[in-house]
Amino acid sequence: MADTDGPTTGELTPPDRTLMGPGPSDVHPRVLRAMSTPLVGHLDPAFVEIMDEVQELLRYAFRTENEWTIPVSGTGSAAMEAAIGNVVEPGDTVLVPTNGYFGGRMASMARRAGGGVVEVEAPWGEPLDPDAVADALATHDPDVFGFIHAETSTGVRQPAVPELTAAAHDHDALVIADCVTSIGGVELRVDDWGIDVAYAGPQKCLSCPPGASPLTLSDEAMEKVLSREEEVRSWYLDLSLLEGYWGEERSYHHTAPVSNVYALREALRLVAEEGIEARWERHERIAGALKAGVEGMGLEMNAPDDYWLPSLNAVRVPDGVEDGEVCAELLDRYDLEIASGLGDLEGEIFRIGCMGHSARPENVIYVVTALGDVLESMGADVDPDAGVAATRRALR
Amino acid sequence: MADTDGPTTGELTPPDRTLMGPGPSDVHPRVLRAMSTPLVGHLDPAFVEIMDEVQELLRYAFRTENEWTIPVSGTGSAAMEAAIGNVVEPGDTVLVPTNGYFGGRMASMARRAGGGVVEVEAPWGEPLDPDAVADALATHDPDVFGFIHAETSTGVRQPAVPELTAAAHDHDALVIADCVTSIGGVELRVDDWGIDVAYAGPQKCLSCPPGASPLTLSDEAMEKVLSREEEVRSWYLDLSLLEGYWGEERSYHHTAPVSNVYALREALRLVAEEGIEARWERHERIAGALKAGVEGMGLEMNAPDDYWLPSLNAVRVPDGVEDGEVCAELLDRYDLEIASGLGDLEGEIFRIGCMGHSARPENVIYVVTALGDVLESMGADVDPDAGVAATRRALR
Repeated sequence: MADTDGPTTGELTPPDRTLMGPGPSDVHPRVLRAMSTPLVGHLDPAFVEIMDEVQELLRYAFRTENEWTIPVSGTGSAAMEAAIGNVVEPGDTVLVPTNGYFGGRMASMARRAGGGVVEVEAPWGEPLDPDAVADALATHDPDVFGFIHAETSTGVRQPAVPELTAAAHDHDALVIADCVTSIGGVELRVDDWGIDVAYAGPQKCLSCPPGASPLTLSDEAMEKVLSREEEVRSWYLDLSLLEGYWGEERSYHHTAPVSNVYALREALRLVAEEGIEARWERHERIAGALKAGVEGMGLEMNAPDDYWLPSLNAVRVPDGVEDGEVCAELLDRYDLEIASGLGDLEGEIFRIGCMGHSARPENVIYVVTALGDVLESMGADVDPDAGVAATRRALR
Repeated sequence: MADTDGPTTGELTPPDRTLMGPGPSDVHPRVLRAMSTPLVGHLDPAFVEIMDEVQELLRYAFRTENEWTIPVSGTGSAAMEAAIGNVVEPGDTVLVPTNGYFGGRMASMARRAGGGVVEVEAPWGEPLDPDAVADALATHDPDVFGFIHAETSTGVRQPAVPELTAAAHDHDALVIADCVTSIGGVELRVDDWGIDVAYAGPQKCLSCPPGASPLTLSDEAMEKVLSREEEVRSWYLDLSLLEGYWGEERSYHHTAPVSNVYALREALRLVAEEGIEARWERHERIAGALKAGVEGMGLEMNAPDDYWLPSLNAVRVPDGVEDGEVCAELLDRYDLEIASGLGDLEGEIFRIGCMGHSARPENVIYVVTALGDVLESMGADVDPDAGVAATRRALR
């Protein structure tokens, strides 16, 4: 056969970035090594054992005893859609928040699942007020209440979670929590806090490459899923089918992303070795030094301390500079990724992650130094040296 | 804070298997190395360049000029559901085949997308008869016709694809082709053959770990997707949203599985370096040696030569042995994976893959030797030495 010439694509040589944006975060070398482990089959008895281990490790990271705790074969949004698409049945009413980007995504997924969407309002950059949630629950009597534990678009941590779940349960609503940017980095207690369904991303505070994403459901939530009248609208994400693969039977559903499961296992082992509470404490301490640094140079955090999210620091863009230019300059001159704002906060904030393996003194010192330098060079009214000094003191 | 003890999970030490099942196949060392490359962000300009390269390489592997050629962020079934869930609108009629496991999956996905399903019948282990397809098209006048180019459950290659697509187009039906087990291993010409939508898996003849899966749509198919009246039922797989990320705009949709995209790029580079036609030829030659070996030892192929699928060899289980026991023994004694049959062919066939980096002389010699030995030791009427000799001669 005559051969058709293929593209002459060169070797893979991506730049060596320091990742301090909203994720992915820097991946630990042990996790990268796990990614390159030769594969076994997805039905191999050795893989079944690895699946069990990953489930146990995920339960530890979520602080749950839920049997139904698995990695979904996709990125965080796939786990999100698995949660919503399985729990929400056509005709259900779903209460979602308006205080950030991901509440809107939740609404879109709920509608596609056949649900009717009602909203509890709060401005971007603010957490939900438990009284407002209680009012909305009383008004709309929803079947499902979803909220964002750690809003990646605004840097807001939702406090008072047990109050929210108690209010929802008073109205017999199941609670879905978006824990994409909290798992492994910010205090999260699925069982103690009464969360029925939680999903997360691996590429944030777990510092694992995206591709297999944590999901956990209580028995009660899973009972709703297994007694649905209509099939889940996605075959790929149908938990009643995945139950056959991750449950007792171990029957074929789809080919699991073996390497991503390997990587997630190693990332979760690192969590277990460090200890989950120690890890939360580390994030608070290291992100505290980052916060001290940006405040020390004269910048302002977008979120008050009461609901500051250590894993995602929203910093107000100072006068006189354009956020996109600052991010581009940091990438260009420092090989350093941070991100600009989204949606209602577009142009108003920088989003600086402090997640997992990126939540280290060297990363925080670097980002404070580089950001101060770039802002000063662009004419912003900042004191870079005071910022670096504040970070150094906070890290003591 | 007092620390809660985490699980004491040991180091990741999976067995070193030789993968000759229905996938994943053995991964090339260069692809494993790409998997362990440190990540850049999914919106990094350097990643955008990599995305472009992957799209170009995918077009080469699919033999298409389709602009709409992307890796879907999930395993092959996610690409399958992306194809069906976007192209099928509620109320559409979808014609699917009954001649294997994956036609049934296609039907389930089409129903969940809101389509009505009609069938063109053929027994498991047979290809579709173009006349039967033409009749079914005339009878049902479907909006979409889906077929399986390479049936992993039966080892059947669908011949006469241009006849099928021409018949479908005569009835104004769009054609979706399942190319999971053909891409990069068996002749496949999306454009020349008039296929409107094709999806594939990375872990078969591309020998890439699962997690980012090829999909291509013609302009006409994409036009149908972009002019849908109802939203796609999956947010995650909605191509009208993914268009913003993979198209001109490069706007955020979800976090791409960066490492899987790296790996797919490297796997596709290997395809381009070898040359696509040379690669098809290699699969036919190496799988031919495998076929010669199993026939030489006295076993029978399930599919006649006319529609034998080199990448997946369905071999009849000989009298006197139990297929599951043979597979377990091969895994146990030889660290070698092959698979048993599914569905209508459960207990009747072995499924022996010969895909990508697994389609090498050493793998084929090994599987013929080991299979012959295990079958003989279990009392089957086979001549292992004749099998090995036939393989050796065929590899000359």
